[in-house]
Amino acid sequence: MPQLRKDPVAKRWVIILHEQDNKPEDLIIPPAPKQVSVCPFCEGNEPMTTPEVMSYRKQGTLPNEAGWEVRVVPNKFPALQIEGELDRAGIGVYDMMNGVGAHEVIIESPIHNANFDTYSEEHVALILTAYADRYKDLRRDRRFRYILIFKNSGAAAGASLDHPHSQLIATPIVPKRAMEELEGAKNYYYYKERCVFCDIIRQEIAQGERIVYENENFVAFTPFASRFPFETWIAPKDHKDSFGDIEEREIKGLAETLKAVIMKLNVTLKNPPFNYVIHTSPCGDQAADYYHWHIEIMPRLSKIKAFEWGSGFYINPITPEKAASYLLNAKTQE
Amino acid sequence: MPQLRKDPVAKRWVIILHEQDNKPEDLIIPPAPKQVSVCPFCEGNEPMTTPEVMSYRKQGTLPNEAGWEVRVVPNKFPALQIEGELDRAGIGVYDMMNGVGAHEVIIESPIHNANFDTYSEEHVALILTAYADRYKDLRRDRRFRYILIFKNSGAAAGASLDHPHSQLIATPIVPKRAMEELEGAKNYYYYKERCVFCDIIRQEIAQGERIVYENENFVAFTPFASRFPFETWIAPKDHKDSFGDIEEREIKGLAETLKAVIMKLNVTLKNPPFNYVIHTSPCGDQAADYYHWHIEIMPRLSKIKAFEWGSGFYINPITPEKAASYLLNAKTQE
Repeated sequence: MPQLRKDPVAKRWVIILHEQDNKPEDLIIPPAPKQVSVCPFCEGNEPMTTPEVMSYRKQGTLPNEAGWEVRVVPNKFPALQIEGELDRAGIGVYDMMNGVGAHEVIIESPIHNANFDTYSEEHVALILTAYADRYKDLRRDRRFRYILIFKNSGAAAGASLDHPHSQLIATPIVPKRAMEELEGAKNYYYYKERCVFCDIIRQEIAQGERIVYENENFVAFTPFASRFPFETWIAPKDHKDSFGDIEEREIKGLAETLKAVIMKLNVTLKNPPFNYVIHTSPCGDQAADYYHWHIEIMPRLSKIKAFEWGSGFYINPITPEKAASYLLNAKTQE
Repeated sequence: MPQLRKDPVAKRWVIILHEQDNKPEDLIIPPAPKQVSVCPFCEGNEPMTTPEVMSYRKQGTLPNEAGWEVRVVPNKFPALQIEGELDRAGIGVYDMMNGVGAHEVIIESPIHNANFDTYSEEHVALILTAYADRYKDLRRDRRFRYILIFKNSGAAAGASLDHPHSQLIATPIVPKRAMEELEGAKNYYYYKERCVFCDIIRQEIAQGERIVYENENFVAFTPFASRFPFETWIAPKDHKDSFGDIEEREIKGLAETLKAVIMKLNVTLKNPPFNYVIHTSPCGDQAADYYHWHIEIMPRLSKIKAFEWGSGFYINPITPEKAASYLLNAKTQE
């Protein structure tokens, strides 16, 4: 079973895959996207994946067969294992626990070269519904403290297979960045008795300088302190701490926003590799008043250098105001 | 002047280069190392750089001429500007200040293709002395709260020029990661009345499982919760919070350790791209009791994926114990 280890100073948790027999030579060259002659995620190849956790499929078709539109399977190479107890242990100054958790793959489409340009809004809504359904199911497991949903698109963003997919990891600890955001939001709330994200959203809409897209329920904007060029966040206008509480009518608005933003990035930056991550409150935590879930989208245009690594201090070569204006005015084919 | 902007939730500072007229197309492809026909860092080309801040050079030679061994110049494309006042400002929920700071390049050698394999220990000591001298000079400037010294080696690690060099950035704020470590170390000290790093070093030496190199003053080890394969830290055995207080006899031991560790990484991982960062206490801060300066060396073997980005939660495919054993046993040419 993988190990979870905690740095005693910075308090960050690390997953150590201690049962893998990796040698230095296995790690020297970053693994290129696997050139698979037969893609395990394509329709018709269902037996090549681990048995599905769920799928949305045509009436009358059977699990692990063709006929699906979105399909969720356990990751074949999981970073965490679903079976087992947490088993916490201390070794002198260090803390560790068993790497218990869930690691699932959301196969976004049966079509190998589908993407946000070709997905209909209804299809994006179906992908988001799969995220929400898996979230709701996994948060009932008392061992899990946090559920992280993310997408790596393009080899440069870390995708190891070309077929469009997202991932979900349920962890027994609250990851460090989530904890930092929760702390920051909590401090603001104690001071102002308002949600910091609600204040940000109000100010962004009023100022208008960094808005990329807006509809009834959602707003997309480039954050004031953007770490990366063209970094874009999508947030619900109404206060809600957990993505797991998203409602059906909100999913429609989110699908519209997510598709619009990614198409704008694709036009402006010529289909860049990108990552997005859903930031949400921990499972079962009482963060309802002060946290506000949102999605952070990061095009991968520049290498991360030691300066950023060492300091958590980023250098961004374009202002978010200018980036927003390029995105706002991007002509997508609609 | 660049702007410093703070994220109101995560409290991280970002440098926004708002005077650069970057267009999306300028940012699409990460800039390759510049193929310069004449290298501005080579001996004889001194007029191609900004005038030197200092150099160690042969007696009788003049500044900005040949005859130097290590040379420090202001960065030609500084992320922060040395002139000006801090000028803090708030804009609604947001905070910002002028991007005042220093950004210097330490040219490590007059020889274009020199590296840690070819440097003598005395030469490494000279490079470290340059770090320390610049540190001591800049910390007298009251505007600066933190001095970050780091090296990017290899294009994949972010080096934009091949000629061996390190960098120094003095910032008017304490970067987020430094703040986190300081907080963690302070909490531990309040609880135990001991330095957490001293405890770590004692435990590492006693356990011996993760030791890579050791001499009288320094120890190099792979940290218990290593984020990256073959991540290696070098720490002074005696407690000291600031790199700026390093003594001459310590520089000798550090040079020996740093050269040994990088040569071990070079043999084991076939000259990997790497970054190292000196972690030290803030300028003028009273962190003397609880912080402990050290160097973190990170070979760049794997891409950072969204999972890590979103969570500050890393997946490491090799145990630090196994990595340490490869490094400990690496046969360097000595």
